Amino acid sequence: MTAARIVGIGATEFSKRSGRSEIELSVDAIARALRDAGLEPGQVQGLTTFTFDTSPESEISRNLGLGPLRFFAQSPFGGGGGCGAIMHAAMAIEAGVADVVVCYRGLNERSGRRFGGTARAVPPRPAAQDILRGYYNQFGLITPADSFAMVARRYMHETGATSEDFGRVAVVQRDYAVTNPAAWFYGRPLTLDEHQASRWIAEPLRLHDCCQESDGAVAVVLGSARVAADLQVTPVVVKAAAQSLPSGYELMTDYNQPTLAAFWDTVELGEQLWSRSGLSTDDVQLAILYDHFSPFVFFQLEALGFCGFGEAPEFVACGETSPGGRLPVNTNGGQLSEAYIHGMNGLAEAVRQLRGTAANQVPGVENVVVTSGPGLPTSGLILGV
Amino acid sequence: MTAARIVGIGATEFSKRSGRSEIELSVDAIARALRDAGLEPGQVQGLTTFTFDTSPESEISRNLGLGPLRFFAQSPFGGGGGCGAIMHAAMAIEAGVADVVVCYRGLNERSGRRFGGTARAVPPRPAAQDILRGYYNQFGLITPADSFAMVARRYMHETGATSEDFGRVAVVQRDYAVTNPAAWFYGRPLTLDEHQASRWIAEPLRLHDCCQESDGAVAVVLGSARVAADLQVTPVVVKAAAQSLPSGYELMTDYNQPTLAAFWDTVELGEQLWSRSGLSTDDVQLAILYDHFSPFVFFQLEALGFCGFGEAPEFVACGETSPGGRLPVNTNGGQLSEAYIHGMNGLAEAVRQLRGTAANQVPGVENVVVTSGPGLPTSGLILGV
Repeated sequence: MTAARIVGIGATEFSKRSGRSEIELSVDAIARALRDAGLEPGQVQGLTTFTFDTSPESEISRNLGLGPLRFFAQSPFGGGGGCGAIMHAAMAIEAGVADVVVCYRGLNERSGRRFGGTARAVPPRPAAQDILRGYYNQFGLITPADSFAMVARRYMHETGATSEDFGRVAVVQRDYAVTNPAAWFYGRPLTLDEHQASRWIAEPLRLHDCCQESDGAVAVVLGSARVAADLQVTPVVVKAAAQSLPSGYELMTDYNQPTLAAFWDTVELGEQLWSRSGLSTDDVQLAILYDHFSPFVFFQLEALGFCGFGEAPEFVACGETSPGGRLPVNTNGGQLSEAYIHGMNGLAEAVRQLRGTAANQVPGVENVVVTSGPGLPTSGLILGV
Repeated sequence: MTAARIVGIGATEFSKRSGRSEIELSVDAIARALRDAGLEPGQVQGLTTFTFDTSPESEISRNLGLGPLRFFAQSPFGGGGGCGAIMHAAMAIEAGVADVVVCYRGLNERSGRRFGGTARAVPPRPAAQDILRGYYNQFGLITPADSFAMVARRYMHETGATSEDFGRVAVVQRDYAVTNPAAWFYGRPLTLDEHQASRWIAEPLRLHDCCQESDGAVAVVLGSARVAADLQVTPVVVKAAAQSLPSGYELMTDYNQPTLAAFWDTVELGEQLWSRSGLSTDDVQLAILYDHFSPFVFFQLEALGFCGFGEAPEFVACGETSPGGRLPVNTNGGQLSEAYIHGMNGLAEAVRQLRGTAANQVPGVENVVVTSGPGLPTSGLILGV
């Protein structure tokens, strides 16, 4: 699956109150991404998005003058789905169904509908899933933070990791955000003391362990190699794409896995990414790891093979994910400190790093691993030049 | 795109009150489809469904013991999406991402949430789409029947077609249902007089011009050619698959097209299907045409090139869609008379006809065209042996 190129990225501002509808955000981001690519709206033949998105392909198409469209697919599981949506777009290009496909995601997650909460607070969602969540809600596991706090606690128990370790992830990422003008926390550093003083959201997760809630949209344009050859931008190759839903898996509350603290969704994702790309961890210079909560950076570093189990806190503490380290991680500030656009803003950062145009540019980036949300059925990419 | 084979089909009973949850229906249909194929649940590597479905892939997988899953995608636009979901599955097989993918759809559309109605009666849906529908709701276009009645009326105006012409579609399809034990109207024929005496739902659409509302589920198993070679069933080849969302298109209320009564979504769909398959209308012996409302059989016969504009009523009146005709259509009774499972039951009928196992078997069927709902962004397939 190497026929697809990422040829355009676009984003709105990231804010806590956009003052615009979600579709207006998405249309704006897509228009920017098409200008970035140097493509006209009428050249777009396909759209992919998240099942959680509220802007249907038909409305996006009419508002922008796209099409005619010959491909549309949606990727489920919220933050788990972003790389899956890119995979679907890449498959359509590979199959010759469409030459140009745009992947978009727009949300007013802070000023509009916020995630978390029981069925009472949330619009009707898939019934079968609500039944499962009902088993856990009664024990106080309401929000994603509640569900994932269990896993963070288990990881601490098994590995000796501490809240300070989690805090170092937040601090490293904040340092990147401080020098990234697009980040919500641009110019506003975070100290480990401030992290330690921040309140519990769901013990052992503190405020600064939790991603932001943001308004904004991001769009990514994919084109065939033939389309890319005619454009001015540096094309980014989709070297591998994968989705992962392990057998017997539970969304958000997958507590029945053999080792609670070792994320088998991401282990199985990594196996696919490495085998499809023919690459290994040694070939990757930068990682965009889905950071709904700071401990997940540890879980993914380990599940993808960058560290052994329990070694990631030391990896981060030694500066390996910081500028000049072995594997800079979330160089835009991540969802902890740039914005929470369901991981799509991290994807755009991967493209910038491969183009050599990132605010915190890492020298010599040839391959980047990008993940979507673990703890959900997840997805991932290896992008390269 | 010819690597994928349909190797299994399964369905629940079709009823007006299933007494079971939607996920139970889907799990039942998938289990039957896997038995039909001769495959074990653990061999399933991918799932596709409709965005309208309420049973998440993670719950389906846990209940059946599937996976691990490496591919999942959802097809938007309700009845427009069925063939798209098959296309997504076929693409995953073509790309080598998965060897076995199941497409499922389960709904209690009659006893549970019924379609149609304004925002008040319907759970929250995509906001941008609601805004568009708001323009039409105030003029009385609430249900799909309301929206499509406008097009049916225009077709009558432009072509001279009559309510009796629409009725002949319903009568022909009912005749098929009478001899199909799985059909809701099994053993219960319909006369043209009964059609003409039936009440208006949205003039010029009468009760018998409208599809049923049904409870039930259908699943279709796709496998690679390699997987299919080891199975006992006659494999059905996906010779072409396509989705179609024309430029400037409006979902349900696409009244701005050049000719209101000529469905350009299906015209553009047909262009893709014929060019990808290398086949023409002459190569097709049977059609499964999405029949939410009887006039849409006319629209699709014409848009796909089986008749010229305005000629389809005569085509049906002459018996060309009846047993022994040039192109038997909806030989299961269709959604008017077998069941309304968002077109997935028609897809299963296409597979049975190609296997030679249909209740109303047509001799010598080599290629079948299958469509999803026109008037929505739509999709289609050419299946063959």
